Amino acid sequence: MNNSRWILIFLAAVVTTFGLGFLAASISERRAENLRPTQVMVNPIGEWETDPAVWGRNFPREYQSWLKTKDSGKDDVGHGPGRTKWGGSDGHDKLARFPHLKELFAGYGFSKEYNRKKGHAFAVEDVTATKRLNDKTPGTCFSCKSPDVPRLMHEMGVAEFYKTPFKDLVGKVQHSISCLDCHDAKTMDLRISRPAFVEAMNRRGIDVNKATHQEMRSYVCAQCHVEYYFKGDGKYLTFPWDKAPKDRGVNVDDIVAYYQESGFSDWSHPVSKTPMIKIQHPDYELWSSGIHAYRGVSCADCHMPYKTEGGVKVTDHQVKSPLLGNIAVSCQVCHRWSESEIKARVESIQDKTMELMDRAEIALIAAHKAVGECIKLGFTDEDLKPARTLIREAQLRWDFIAAENSTGFHAPQESARALGAAIDQARQAELLALALQLKKSGAAPAQP
Amino acid sequence: MNNSRWILIFLAAVVTTFGLGFLAASISERRAENLRPTQVMVNPIGEWETDPAVWGRNFPREYQSWLKTKDSGKDDVGHGPGRTKWGGSDGHDKLARFPHLKELFAGYGFSKEYNRKKGHAFAVEDVTATKRLNDKTPGTCFSCKSPDVPRLMHEMGVAEFYKTPFKDLVGKVQHSISCLDCHDAKTMDLRISRPAFVEAMNRRGIDVNKATHQEMRSYVCAQCHVEYYFKGDGKYLTFPWDKAPKDRGVNVDDIVAYYQESGFSDWSHPVSKTPMIKIQHPDYELWSSGIHAYRGVSCADCHMPYKTEGGVKVTDHQVKSPLLGNIAVSCQVCHRWSESEIKARVESIQDKTMELMDRAEIALIAAHKAVGECIKLGFTDEDLKPARTLIREAQLRWDFIAAENSTGFHAPQESARALGAAIDQARQAELLALALQLKKSGAAPAQP
Repeated sequence: MNNSRWILIFLAAVVTTFGLGFLAASISERRAENLRPTQVMVNPIGEWETDPAVWGRNFPREYQSWLKTKDSGKDDVGHGPGRTKWGGSDGHDKLARFPHLKELFAGYGFSKEYNRKKGHAFAVEDVTATKRLNDKTPGTCFSCKSPDVPRLMHEMGVAEFYKTPFKDLVGKVQHSISCLDCHDAKTMDLRISRPAFVEAMNRRGIDVNKATHQEMRSYVCAQCHVEYYFKGDGKYLTFPWDKAPKDRGVNVDDIVAYYQESGFSDWSHPVSKTPMIKIQHPDYELWSSGIHAYRGVSCADCHMPYKTEGGVKVTDHQVKSPLLGNIAVSCQVCHRWSESEIKARVESIQDKTMELMDRAEIALIAAHKAVGECIKLGFTDEDLKPARTLIREAQLRWDFIAAENSTGFHAPQESARALGAAIDQARQAELLALALQLKKSGAAPAQP
Repeated sequence: MNNSRWILIFLAAVVTTFGLGFLAASISERRAENLRPTQVMVNPIGEWETDPAVWGRNFPREYQSWLKTKDSGKDDVGHGPGRTKWGGSDGHDKLARFPHLKELFAGYGFSKEYNRKKGHAFAVEDVTATKRLNDKTPGTCFSCKSPDVPRLMHEMGVAEFYKTPFKDLVGKVQHSISCLDCHDAKTMDLRISRPAFVEAMNRRGIDVNKATHQEMRSYVCAQCHVEYYFKGDGKYLTFPWDKAPKDRGVNVDDIVAYYQESGFSDWSHPVSKTPMIKIQHPDYELWSSGIHAYRGVSCADCHMPYKTEGGVKVTDHQVKSPLLGNIAVSCQVCHRWSESEIKARVESIQDKTMELMDRAEIALIAAHKAVGECIKLGFTDEDLKPARTLIREAQLRWDFIAAENSTGFHAPQESARALGAAIDQARQAELLALALQLKKSGAAPAQP
């Protein structure tokens, strides 16, 4: 064997040894990351422990970041503390900011008070203080506000919990949305604590018990950040997802089809006497039609990004818009552009959504008024049914985007499609009303 | 010095030598890639050589792929030869496929014949055969069809070329869109051969002579794949871009603003007597509002991707939709998903565009008819002006997306925004017409 052979063998040995050392270091690092939380728990947590402070003794970093959901109003990214260009977590008065809302929700609680949601830690305080409450408000309204809810459901039974008057539960529901809502107290695994989500997914043929961890990182959010209604006299919390097949997300057409079939309505609009649907906050549904869902990016990936604290990797539990100080840890993980460019890009998407939203609102208000005019002229419910059906559907589509928390960002083109249809249907309703008036006047027949 | 030091020095030397060798190889490879074409030209090409076959003697690979634009109809991706789901290069009859078009373009050439464009090699043959020609057709219609055009413009003068009757140029314009249209015959550099693009960019404050190579990879396409009109008696080819600032792309609002100010119209719609604008193929404009433009991806990056032939890197000159067999070399360079997933994603975007397109078409046809009804009822041009202004603008917005070749793909949300506005304005026009009729009938005043 000549020298160069020896050198080669020597080199190969060096490289291999280095590689093995590197691998060992990497394995050890990953094992440390992967330690089951139970293995490091100093203070065991009871199965129904609802106080986040108790959990916080074991998980101080997560707890501290959760506590910051009280500070959501303090981030300033150029639109005032806690505000993004069109949204934010500062709890501002949407009725004052967007005057169309008062007309669109006339006759319903949301025309009395409609504020931007604040951070998770405010949930119980805010739901108890809202002017939308009255004596008939059912317990269902507490469903998503507190980790005490799964405990109470366990004790009282789910149906009984929903039926119980809201006012009878005040005091029993104490802690705001926190640890037990999404985690198993023993294993710290993500878990679904709300039956409505499990039931809705079941009806679509999806068994949430078979979810992957990455799916769970959206499912725990989807327990609450969805459209829902209170079904029947028992005010049973129900997600209107039955028309959505299991192999894709839930879109607005599925929800329209469900409500048009069920005939449910939240209230009757005082101007047009249309039986209306109020959409809640279909963040999960709109996300499910968007590119991030398509590419397997979960809610938590953007809204609860990984951060490092003293060299330790922590999931940020200050759930909020990534625009409020988290662009670096949320967006830039995948999108390698400057923060200002990312922010500008998001806002450009949202501006376009707002343009169509505004068109839809103007069209809807005009449609309500045109049908209202017909009522004054003596047209019957039978005459006005086609126009009201269009208004009901149009406002549902608009509200699907308006009530959702991303101003179209979760699925930009899909949002524009929903709003385009809303505009068309609202204008068609107005046209039907005018055609009725024209027919009554004995003039030449209007266009079909 | 102990042994380990020597080993380290030895190792460092080995690594450095290897690195230098690698670098040298890489440099030599890149130099080969970068050889100016002039250095390998066997048969020099004349400054005004318009025959692609002559260029092909030096650049056989590019020429062969250009020849394949005659075969565009032969690719089959599941929608019939040469067809994508909504478009393609098979030259199919759009009037037969989309019956609304006949009504929307009534009274204009595009209601007589409106076929999908075929490949570049068909340009002269197709423009000479179209039923849209008549004795008044100006030479301007030849502007984008042939490399003989820059030569003729050079000989005749630009304004004179436009003014000359089309029929007088038949025979003089021989070769279809090919080499000289985009390349300098001596240096092979990309070059702008059409004055209309240079002039339009100048009016926006952009000097195309300062363009980077990557910008040129879109600019050469933007000479033709744009909205244009024939200005004044001289039928001077003009791009309506003056309202678009230089620091962003050209969007439909800029074009609406231009035409509403100029008052130009292509024809009068026979039903509503509205002065209409026909939009051509604003591929460059729509792209300029989309994410690919935003991220610096040029037209050529997707429509003329790099391929390898016998180990040599060649720009594919068979310009066509990437969906027609080029997903791997176009899309997958950046988007690492399966071909079928990419195709499905594109089609999902296009399906949503088509849904809004259909809504806009139905609304526009109804608006034309409602205004037509008013004409029969004796309303004056003055009465009908607001409704006609809305129709003109709405159809322009719709056509901006309908005439464009990507079915919304080049800028999905922006396309939906344009169509949402078109729907709203068309319905508003119809409402104005009904309100007029209602007012005349003496009935209660209609809604504002």
